[in-house]
Amino acid sequence: MAYYLKTKKLDIKTGQANIALLNDQEAMRYGIHAGDKIRISWDHKELIAEANTSEEKIKAGNIGLYQDIWENINIPLNTIVEIEVLERAPSVQAIKKRLLGKKLKYEEFKQIFADIASGVLTRTETTYFVASGFMRQYTDQELYFMTKAMAETGEMLKFPGLVVDKHSVGGLAGNRTTMVVIPIIAALGLTIPKTSSRAITSPAGTADTMEVLAPVSLSADKIHDIVKKHGACLVWGGGLNLAPADDDILKVSYPLSLEPYSKMLVSIMAKKVAAGVKYLVIDMPVGKTTKIPDMETAKALEKKFKYLASKFKIKIKVIMTKTEDPVGRGIGPALEARDVLRVLQQKDNYPADLANKAIHLAGELLELCGKAKKGHGATLAWKTLEGGQAWTKMQELIKAQGGNPNVQPDDIVIGACKKYFVAQKSGRIIFTDNKMINTVARILGAPSDKLAGVYLNKEFNDPVKKGERLFTLYARTQERIKLASKALEKGQIFKIGR
Amino acid sequence: MAYYLKTKKLDIKTGQANIALLNDQEAMRYGIHAGDKIRISWDHKELIAEANTSEEKIKAGNIGLYQDIWENINIPLNTIVEIEVLERAPSVQAIKKRLLGKKLKYEEFKQIFADIASGVLTRTETTYFVASGFMRQYTDQELYFMTKAMAETGEMLKFPGLVVDKHSVGGLAGNRTTMVVIPIIAALGLTIPKTSSRAITSPAGTADTMEVLAPVSLSADKIHDIVKKHGACLVWGGGLNLAPADDDILKVSYPLSLEPYSKMLVSIMAKKVAAGVKYLVIDMPVGKTTKIPDMETAKALEKKFKYLASKFKIKIKVIMTKTEDPVGRGIGPALEARDVLRVLQQKDNYPADLANKAIHLAGELLELCGKAKKGHGATLAWKTLEGGQAWTKMQELIKAQGGNPNVQPDDIVIGACKKYFVAQKSGRIIFTDNKMINTVARILGAPSDKLAGVYLNKEFNDPVKKGERLFTLYARTQERIKLASKALEKGQIFKIGR
Repeated sequence: MAYYLKTKKLDIKTGQANIALLNDQEAMRYGIHAGDKIRISWDHKELIAEANTSEEKIKAGNIGLYQDIWENINIPLNTIVEIEVLERAPSVQAIKKRLLGKKLKYEEFKQIFADIASGVLTRTETTYFVASGFMRQYTDQELYFMTKAMAETGEMLKFPGLVVDKHSVGGLAGNRTTMVVIPIIAALGLTIPKTSSRAITSPAGTADTMEVLAPVSLSADKIHDIVKKHGACLVWGGGLNLAPADDDILKVSYPLSLEPYSKMLVSIMAKKVAAGVKYLVIDMPVGKTTKIPDMETAKALEKKFKYLASKFKIKIKVIMTKTEDPVGRGIGPALEARDVLRVLQQKDNYPADLANKAIHLAGELLELCGKAKKGHGATLAWKTLEGGQAWTKMQELIKAQGGNPNVQPDDIVIGACKKYFVAQKSGRIIFTDNKMINTVARILGAPSDKLAGVYLNKEFNDPVKKGERLFTLYARTQERIKLASKALEKGQIFKIGR
Repeated sequence: MAYYLKTKKLDIKTGQANIALLNDQEAMRYGIHAGDKIRISWDHKELIAEANTSEEKIKAGNIGLYQDIWENINIPLNTIVEIEVLERAPSVQAIKKRLLGKKLKYEEFKQIFADIASGVLTRTETTYFVASGFMRQYTDQELYFMTKAMAETGEMLKFPGLVVDKHSVGGLAGNRTTMVVIPIIAALGLTIPKTSSRAITSPAGTADTMEVLAPVSLSADKIHDIVKKHGACLVWGGGLNLAPADDDILKVSYPLSLEPYSKMLVSIMAKKVAAGVKYLVIDMPVGKTTKIPDMETAKALEKKFKYLASKFKIKIKVIMTKTEDPVGRGIGPALEARDVLRVLQQKDNYPADLANKAIHLAGELLELCGKAKKGHGATLAWKTLEGGQAWTKMQELIKAQGGNPNVQPDDIVIGACKKYFVAQKSGRIIFTDNKMINTVARILGAPSDKLAGVYLNKEFNDPVKKGERLFTLYARTQERIKLASKALEKGQIFKIGR
């Protein structure tokens, strides 16, 4: 039974779910209760939302759409749409089955991911699915089914040329190598359509940092054009509908900060499969305060990555590096964008660690896909960076995405309020707390406030003298600086020893 | 860091969560994001809510409280309250541990239930806890820990006299024996403080049906007074804060309609422990369309019930009955209330099955607690009902709770729109679909619309002639009748055979 209502814009943001507000009396008449899932259809498109009800905030005949909807979905306003109450999703049976410890078939995974992606499954049902991953380790075959199903639930891209990619398993502050690697690789004629996520628990994702230089929320058509013309892009993945179930799965994984490795594997590989990647380098930082705590875990993961890659005929190399140390000096979108520009423009004060790491990863990828002979990848990458071709390519990308290609590092605005922290004693920096840096940068306002963040005046292993600057906080308001300073009373970013 | 805002009433209902709306700019300044959990404190009380944000719907300096909050919680409006962002709940660690298959200690369960009850745990985190129940069967000791922890998280009641109770494991339509058993037992001088739930998936809970006769949402003080004076009550349990975590656990169990038996056991027993019950009869209908599908499951559950009861020194009897057949003729709050009154007032047309079942259960309880000799309980119960003492006691309870003690069955208003369904052929009723009855009654509007429901003109095993009335639908509007008729095109309530 369908009903017809006129869409109205409401400025309420939940940060979590698509909510549509119905008039209380009308909803009752239609048999819709607060909390029910409804399908909203218009113009051969549809959207699943959760119904809330109100006596006054919405008139009969209207349906109020929350900000989470109209910000992300192109649904017409003040327009009549069709409303339908949803029954229980078909995949709920499969989720129950997995929760009771049974293996699922490909078709069952496909149905689950399709229902998650379309919003038919509630947040609670999606949580049960994620939880079922702990019931019994996924078999290799299940991992393959999941990856295939997750990829095939969304768009499957086909780009011309040799499609390659580089992926960093997260957790390391300031790890913006992507923005250096991509222009190097693309400058050498390979196709590298890079889609990134925004930060969820960290102070900046690649998409957040790139957004300081150019728009990243582009339409699928626009992204295709750019990649065809320039061999690369540096965009937010949301516009492309790649492995769309992944986003919602991430949202329910985050509260427990329990990302099962199986979920991570599937999430990464499904996107590569959907993007048509043929050669892939995985950068896996290993360390207590990163996502992968030890080499044993890293090696087990490498094996699974290799298994999945072989199933999809992707050539893969996993690079495991033991580290706790942030990459670059700036943490937070604007500060990280400055670092990246300094490296690409080869400024005198460019952060060497960021450049070196990017060169190393680019080199490995060049060797893997046969663009460079074994042992010569890093040299080729280095020449491309030093010779300015990488920066020229980056300028092309910035311009194509709608930014200013002549931007200089110091043009980038950072927080007007700042505070230095100095060494309380002389010595050497013997430990950097990567997690603490992330926490402080987030308190300062990153990533939603791009100007905010932490600049590291010193690095791991640097000698310091008492009273010397260790790091600097940047924020939009003094209040944020105060909040971050408070957090720094409880924990510290650097440990100074002998 | 605490902030101060003035409470404002908003008329939006989510049906799921406590939401508080903050001004967007202000929230940003305070470091609160949409989706964050906040603690609202006033006058030594506190409430945990989820933050949503809006630019226009709420002014800076104010905090908007959704209907789900101000309907259920006595928080002052237009009053300055203290706001604080919550960090991750301490019990998240314990939930992770259980999810990874490890056993939990009493203290860990206690922390989890306390955090669920106070709202510190999010819906997603609570879902992970429920899902962890599937990881590994709970050991008997874990079940004991959970029951104890869940009871002790809330109020622990102490009523004078011999405190007894009767509990029906749900799933059977029209199973309103409670409203007959309680007055019988109380008329015989025992203490039976009955707290019930409202319907969640069924068309009427005992609280919904009793509410047709008298208010059931009473304060804890009022409930205590009534029980002291009359030896019984028939109220909604929400006001008493008994095993408060149970409600939220139920909410996340419902979407998968996967109530693990362990959850059911703990939920029932925790409330009995908290209410100080010493003698307990469990009514367990067993059948394909009820909660317990077969006798094997029923027996396994009986064993666990007995184990838990022994740990808390409760004398228990579990009565397992194979049935699919609804009890009484009416399904839906008003129609069920009519049935109950007919039994209590011993009207000519009283539904015999409801009376018989209630007598049987009351008899078992009287024997269990020593009020009647073995084999004489049912007779004593029957005399109390027939002699009118049970109705007199019910009148006391109705009056004490604020209803009209002289109500007659036909005084109760039922839906003005009705539709008869007649037999398509002659024969005998060989099957009653309990689930279908529930579905149809809900479509008609029960339980939120008390007037709506299904009246069964025939019962299991009745002979019928072609064209004879089988059942009648009642609703407030013709639209609801149409919707229910539509559902009845796909499935049927009765099956007629030879």
